[in-house]
Amino acid sequence: MNDFMYYNPVRVHFGKEAMGRLEEELAALGTKVLLVYGGGSIRRTGLYDRVRRALEDTGKTVWELSGAMPNPRTEKVYEGIDICRRQGVDLILAVGGGSVIDCAKAIAVGAPAQGDFWERFFKNWEPAQEGIPLGVVLTIPATGSELDQSAVITNWQTGEKNSYDSPFQFPRFTILDPTLTYTLPKNQMVNGIVDTVSHILELYVSPPDGENLTDALAEAALRTEIGAARKALEDPRDYEARANLMWVSSFALCGMLNNGKKTDWASHCIQHPLSALYDVAHGAGLSVVHPAYLEYICPQAAPRLARLACRVWDVDPSGRSQEETAREGLRRLKDFFWRELGAPSTLSQLGIPAESVPRLAAGADLSCWSYRPLTREDVEAILRSCV
Amino acid sequence: MNDFMYYNPVRVHFGKEAMGRLEEELAALGTKVLLVYGGGSIRRTGLYDRVRRALEDTGKTVWELSGAMPNPRTEKVYEGIDICRRQGVDLILAVGGGSVIDCAKAIAVGAPAQGDFWERFFKNWEPAQEGIPLGVVLTIPATGSELDQSAVITNWQTGEKNSYDSPFQFPRFTILDPTLTYTLPKNQMVNGIVDTVSHILELYVSPPDGENLTDALAEAALRTEIGAARKALEDPRDYEARANLMWVSSFALCGMLNNGKKTDWASHCIQHPLSALYDVAHGAGLSVVHPAYLEYICPQAAPRLARLACRVWDVDPSGRSQEETAREGLRRLKDFFWRELGAPSTLSQLGIPAESVPRLAAGADLSCWSYRPLTREDVEAILRSCV
Repeated sequence: MNDFMYYNPVRVHFGKEAMGRLEEELAALGTKVLLVYGGGSIRRTGLYDRVRRALEDTGKTVWELSGAMPNPRTEKVYEGIDICRRQGVDLILAVGGGSVIDCAKAIAVGAPAQGDFWERFFKNWEPAQEGIPLGVVLTIPATGSELDQSAVITNWQTGEKNSYDSPFQFPRFTILDPTLTYTLPKNQMVNGIVDTVSHILELYVSPPDGENLTDALAEAALRTEIGAARKALEDPRDYEARANLMWVSSFALCGMLNNGKKTDWASHCIQHPLSALYDVAHGAGLSVVHPAYLEYICPQAAPRLARLACRVWDVDPSGRSQEETAREGLRRLKDFFWRELGAPSTLSQLGIPAESVPRLAAGADLSCWSYRPLTREDVEAILRSCV
Repeated sequence: MNDFMYYNPVRVHFGKEAMGRLEEELAALGTKVLLVYGGGSIRRTGLYDRVRRALEDTGKTVWELSGAMPNPRTEKVYEGIDICRRQGVDLILAVGGGSVIDCAKAIAVGAPAQGDFWERFFKNWEPAQEGIPLGVVLTIPATGSELDQSAVITNWQTGEKNSYDSPFQFPRFTILDPTLTYTLPKNQMVNGIVDTVSHILELYVSPPDGENLTDALAEAALRTEIGAARKALEDPRDYEARANLMWVSSFALCGMLNNGKKTDWASHCIQHPLSALYDVAHGAGLSVVHPAYLEYICPQAAPRLARLACRVWDVDPSGRSQEETAREGLRRLKDFFWRELGAPSTLSQLGIPAESVPRLAAGADLSCWSYRPLTREDVEAILRSCV
């Protein structure tokens, strides 16, 4: 096990009654609130009214920033920073999924800092010195952003999708009410499941390879996610299934599955240009790219992928070589993503033409660790296998 | 899954180089330090000198409270509170195992409060309003106190062993260096393993009984603990084994295994009078009491104990009734505690006479939840089965 530091100060309220804690949390924080959300879905479901009532009952002055979209963009962040600076906002409340939360996080560290948030933080990774307190009401279980210190922002001017970590991006509180996910469209639920599985695999498919608690927790999380996904597909209003999907997706990135692991993130690095250039939903892109990446590194990662196959996909290793066991596990992963969940399996299903492969490969960050360190040519080969 | 609140703000430094973070943590906190530790072991191993050097290098004024013993007592807490109040201590550093940490926690909330810490907090469970910041260097993986907000203190005047929870009892930081455990006497290592397994079981053997992430994480933690224990028994200097034992014991009580669970704690409630009246080591008492308790509730808890048997002890359920599967699992648990670890199996091995059973039963807190709610007579029956 490698040395690690673990720290996660987010206060989590989870369950059917979790929204009941919103007033209490708001009362303990600022008075001038920026409410960040996405499109109209929270208005349709009544969540918007519920949140506005809580803000009113706790006497807040509220500004709104709506339209935070998937693959959140620098423009929206600048807009939020501008409101915060002009109005002296002292609390940001994000209501939505990972894109809304990431947008709110970038505003939280960007507003109090001098100069340009993209240049300082997302481009040059300066450590932020402060942040506006942030609260979250989650509506889409997927990115884990509600429980971590990372944000990913897309810059359309430069075609970059960069991430930034700061302890000042940890939400002060996160409200996780699984019933809020009942009304999610199926494709959003599916993208969230793919994203969650992908996050856990990025952490799990890396050294150390001996027995350790972190790997055992990752296997438990994967098995729970897969089982819950099957139940939620059958009955979208199965509370236990929705609750497990929500809690696994948050737990996946709370830091516990990083502890002592090298971690990988190559699939995310390969996927990011797909979103940055074609505005592909993150989970949809991962469904195409992640299995292809794992197939590509299988000869080098066979022991680890064989362990994944046996412990998560119940592959019987007898009569199989290690690599055959590993590949059988990957076959079941693809089956789960593509057949059971109905997530996309090719670039063309994402509307991405084969000719764009070199440009996509050129945009991939190659600094991620991998059992098979990747060159630009490797990324091209992986993407070509997805055409 | 039941609703839950999860919050754990402890900053954890884990690994071979974790002690290297001590100065940095100390530098960010107070100037007048109460150093709390137990007997002479930290002097023998050189840890005392290492810690004193860090305190000196960060310019602290230091007072010492040594002699915090297993089943830490009110007297030692009063002594520490007195020093803190007279000297204006603004940081407490606990170096040791759970007893040292619990003593330090009680001092941390007791010193700034008016009146008597036992009456207000450990007897009447008033919510503390503040606490002196607390840091921890752990030497014995067992109680999980280094990562939770609980403390257990024994009052010899009244023969009570009471616990108290407060967010002000969370350590600000915890240093976990597995190499510090190489020199632990075998019985302390064994007691720690029993304690850790027992903690996880107290959380796991309770509803909800459907598939959920929390249970899956508990099973992963149990399997990791059992595997690591076997390796550490074989080679006490096996770093990976020691690292897993240390991290599982802390993880067990960080709150993740409580999430959404009813939780039980009956075995701890039955064990506490053994420590309060006979000063029995906590883990040793649990090794006797916990298996007996589970046997006693087996008819009511059979589905859950059968699941434990299959998923943790690899019992094959075919051809067995659910209760037979459950009992086979318990047989393996006892085998592990008593034969593999060599932990005690009877009250007489703990030096407790059979005649004391009624008095021990009378001292047990019966408010814990159980699949089979316990009366005084039930506790007597359980303890008589351990004679």
